[in-house]
Amino acid sequence: MADYSIGVDLGGTNLRAAAIASSGEILAKISGIAKLSEGRETVVTDMVDSVVKLREQCGDRRLTGVGIGVPGFIDLDKGYIVGSNNLPQFDQYPIRDEIELRLGTRVVLENDANAAALGEKWMGAGKDVQDLVLLTLGTGIGGGIVSAGKILHGFVGMAGEIGHVTVVPNGYPCGCGNRGCLEKHASATAIAGMARVVQLGNLTSEEVYELAVDGEPRARRVFEVMGEVLGMGLATLVNIFNFPLYLLSGGPLPAWDFFAPTMFRTLEERSFTFRNTKTRIERATLGSEAGLFGAAYLGLELEAAH
Amino acid sequence: MADYSIGVDLGGTNLRAAAIASSGEILAKISGIAKLSEGRETVVTDMVDSVVKLREQCGDRRLTGVGIGVPGFIDLDKGYIVGSNNLPQFDQYPIRDEIELRLGTRVVLENDANAAALGEKWMGAGKDVQDLVLLTLGTGIGGGIVSAGKILHGFVGMAGEIGHVTVVPNGYPCGCGNRGCLEKHASATAIAGMARVVQLGNLTSEEVYELAVDGEPRARRVFEVMGEVLGMGLATLVNIFNFPLYLLSGGPLPAWDFFAPTMFRTLEERSFTFRNTKTRIERATLGSEAGLFGAAYLGLELEAAH
Repeated sequence: MADYSIGVDLGGTNLRAAAIASSGEILAKISGIAKLSEGRETVVTDMVDSVVKLREQCGDRRLTGVGIGVPGFIDLDKGYIVGSNNLPQFDQYPIRDEIELRLGTRVVLENDANAAALGEKWMGAGKDVQDLVLLTLGTGIGGGIVSAGKILHGFVGMAGEIGHVTVVPNGYPCGCGNRGCLEKHASATAIAGMARVVQLGNLTSEEVYELAVDGEPRARRVFEVMGEVLGMGLATLVNIFNFPLYLLSGGPLPAWDFFAPTMFRTLEERSFTFRNTKTRIERATLGSEAGLFGAAYLGLELEAAH
Repeated sequence: MADYSIGVDLGGTNLRAAAIASSGEILAKISGIAKLSEGRETVVTDMVDSVVKLREQCGDRRLTGVGIGVPGFIDLDKGYIVGSNNLPQFDQYPIRDEIELRLGTRVVLENDANAAALGEKWMGAGKDVQDLVLLTLGTGIGGGIVSAGKILHGFVGMAGEIGHVTVVPNGYPCGCGNRGCLEKHASATAIAGMARVVQLGNLTSEEVYELAVDGEPRARRVFEVMGEVLGMGLATLVNIFNFPLYLLSGGPLPAWDFFAPTMFRTLEERSFTFRNTKTRIERATLGSEAGLFGAAYLGLELEAAH
């Protein structure tokens, strides 16, 4: 089939887009910067231009639709971001309808972690299952739930905010208003924060990882604590969903060997379901492209819904 | 339509069964004691006898199947209980197949809280939604998740174990192996336990409620704490599911006015999604009959699946 779709991934740093065939083959790809400091109009124009450019490159093939993944809480019906720490300029801006209008093509807006979860289900580590949860460990922790092959949206599209599950009731305050959110204790940002607490200095999570590789005990301890908290969050998910597969992705993943032992030990301790089933906790395989695949899949589904 | 189904609810105390028409009308009902101390065979025979008796009372109507709700972790494929605090005699006993054999009728086994959630969706407080979570506050806390009109089972049927979500990381140890499970801090048993801690003596949760009605400040405080912990558990569910409706049922429900204020305050504080959506947290309406309705609904579905 010559149909294809375009997936767009707008983050706090990067703007990327890819034309992907219904077979899952990437036909063309564009990577750029999200010029948020230049204002919303610049970013919207860049998004539209990226799609137009990819469309030109795809020649005769038929575009079914465009999927856009963005960070933050999404109102699916209204097609806008309700609240996002990374893209505050877009709060309640009718981004879906505006881009649809400029392109003359159907557009679907989706939370970036939801899109990534769907991407992993379509072409990544979740190919063999119908149900999975993906956690993306970054500045925060995004969550995407795929149930019976489809994104679990909830009634306005805000489901899957797993980064805001409470794991430490009196823990660090979060921008969402809560305290002790999973993302405040197990994200890349949290790893950097813990490194400061144990006086390793101002490091990125990657630098903390390098220290751990070098054998620095405080750096290793940071990942052990992070693994334990992540295990608590995962135990809650396993007890609630009893899904076969939970995937992790994001910057801290190379440190798997440092955080996974405490993560699995905590899961063993805290989840009867984990102990008694063949639940898999694994690394996602599509990396930063998962969101593009998922967004494109949604663009293909627009056609199917017609 | 003259079709009907029989729902059976086997608990640690009671054995009940009802013949329910596809319209939702209760045609006949039997309530008895679960004679667990007399051994498994007695209980199985009583269950079979109850169904036979109801079937006789329904005359010419056509029985589509039998649904059985039981407490504990269920392996849906195998049709048995993996582990139950209340029915240890039945662990890994092929209860579904055995009863199917004796009755010559198709039988489906389901977790009692899952059945109750489905019952509320069919004929109770959840009639107007397709997605809901039910928490039953009793000896423990059972959870049932209805997503897109169907019970969310997970891959072996163990989904919805919301009573074992961690709310107090270093809280009371639980029979499931975890510490600080929701059910250790917000069930009827937990209310009685907290009453002992604040030196109100050995009371049932109903007696603690009566003291709260009388204005006893320690009894009121017990419900305030219970409401706060329940709010934490609900905030996690709201953040994960973004469902329109979360229902509570069970013995402590009459104390709603004592625990609901802290429950809602905690939800407001801990859930961005709750603050920004019209999420409803309400009392279930079918009481102890929810499980019978849900089990019967599953019996009706057996026919549809044919």
